Amino acid sequence: MHTVTIVGLGLIGGSAARDLRRENVATSIIGVDQNPAHAGAALALGLVDEVLPLQEAVEKADVVLLAVPVNAIGALLRPVLDLLPEHATLIDFGSTKSALCGQVRQHPKRGQYVAAHPIAGTENSGPAAALEHLYKGKTNIVCEREASSGEALATAMALFEALGLQTVFMDAETHDKQLAYISHLSHVSSFVLSMTVLDAEKAEKDIFALAGSGFASTVRLAKSSPAMWAPIFEQNSAYLGQAIEEYITILKQFQEHLQSGNTAILYQMMEQANKIRPVLEGKAKTPAL
Amino acid sequence: MHTVTIVGLGLIGGSAARDLRRENVATSIIGVDQNPAHAGAALALGLVDEVLPLQEAVEKADVVLLAVPVNAIGALLRPVLDLLPEHATLIDFGSTKSALCGQVRQHPKRGQYVAAHPIAGTENSGPAAALEHLYKGKTNIVCEREASSGEALATAMALFEALGLQTVFMDAETHDKQLAYISHLSHVSSFVLSMTVLDAEKAEKDIFALAGSGFASTVRLAKSSPAMWAPIFEQNSAYLGQAIEEYITILKQFQEHLQSGNTAILYQMMEQANKIRPVLEGKAKTPAL
Repeated sequence: MHTVTIVGLGLIGGSAARDLRRENVATSIIGVDQNPAHAGAALALGLVDEVLPLQEAVEKADVVLLAVPVNAIGALLRPVLDLLPEHATLIDFGSTKSALCGQVRQHPKRGQYVAAHPIAGTENSGPAAALEHLYKGKTNIVCEREASSGEALATAMALFEALGLQTVFMDAETHDKQLAYISHLSHVSSFVLSMTVLDAEKAEKDIFALAGSGFASTVRLAKSSPAMWAPIFEQNSAYLGQAIEEYITILKQFQEHLQSGNTAILYQMMEQANKIRPVLEGKAKTPAL
Repeated sequence: MHTVTIVGLGLIGGSAARDLRRENVATSIIGVDQNPAHAGAALALGLVDEVLPLQEAVEKADVVLLAVPVNAIGALLRPVLDLLPEHATLIDFGSTKSALCGQVRQHPKRGQYVAAHPIAGTENSGPAAALEHLYKGKTNIVCEREASSGEALATAMALFEALGLQTVFMDAETHDKQLAYISHLSHVSSFVLSMTVLDAEKAEKDIFALAGSGFASTVRLAKSSPAMWAPIFEQNSAYLGQAIEEYITILKQFQEHLQSGNTAILYQMMEQANKIRPVLEGKAKTPAL
């Protein structure tokens, strides 16, 4: 892949740019970003060689990587496929997969597209948040593998490998359902925890002086970008709604046992929850753990 | 303080022992633990000089530190005060304060007692989890300061200082209310997140293969000890129940806007939640952040 065009020069696209350059996978990296400040910062940071308008950047590309929020991917997927040179490959890094795959299922160039989702990120955003090795050792999910051509898949796999990703294959519905529980629900619980404590702080001044590392860890994801997450929640509202429902159900059970003084049952619930320990210890992945 | 007796040789008591010894604050440290395995491990690890039965250990002490779960502190507070030598000081490190302070309000030796809560800990427990510098730079809350004698308070402050704690003063009700939001609710949200995803995993095999650092951070507190937390929840059930109620209310709002496709309002809610960022950045305290 001589020329890689990255659309979206934030944490996700910028981090990919850093690694692709270091690994000499791309001889040239073209950036596209509708935010001129981000485009300028990406140039200044050396993430990309040049910034071009979308059409020109796609037409020059061997690989196009879409690293924008999932609503923007939804808006770009068909027009970019339309413009994509015959030999080139289109990859997206969106956190939802079902709606996106559905959009281009009948597209004549569907074979040139690889639907991917690397499970990587931080709560920060923008080109300055881009990190080398963000993807190293992380899981990458490719959906509807059978709809991608062998050539596109081989190109994409070479790029994933250069990033250090470990790729698994899954259908798009299963992806969205599982991510609702293992990722999107964590974000909701964290956003809502933040709102609850910020509300409490209005009445209870200086409450944050009492915050320990446990609160900081639990609420960390509440720093995440609404521009990224609102479209993910929207696209995955059915599965996420189900996950939130189940979460509320268990919270209410906890609440009932708390209020009726049923400490023995609270104890059992926590013992149940403790079973997450070996799961997490098998997966120590990032410094953020 | 020549002899410090530490009752409870787990993470909290063991970590205090390490620091008090290093700082030469205690010439002798006596341990008490009803679990013989913990007592043996604490001796083997050099956390304490000797292990004695409670009565003997209290009678020999210049300072007694209660570092056991809050239900056990509740059971020990009066008998230990009864046994406490006239010159000695009793300190507890329990995470709730109102019920404990209430128990001894009329005790003739109330002045010898200092009710404290250092906001420090990890999700691990037992003597092997004890860490040097666990308390360094952390906030310590002393409740009902005016009920402690000047002498007891001075002794306690010297001990807190040796641990590197920064002490603030607060009434016990305010403490319990604020901790319900800033600490206990985080634990509940994390325990329940763990239970929800473990439940989902029964239907969706291999879901944990998709876990990223965000999930790990949000669910970390679900590894916490039920033996420690069940009594905290029980003692703080009124304020914690109120906090959980408010958390569920905001979750339901989020859920409603999600299901009615009100993405603009979800966006606003997340922007609201983002206000936690400067709060957390002002308080980067531990490597676990």
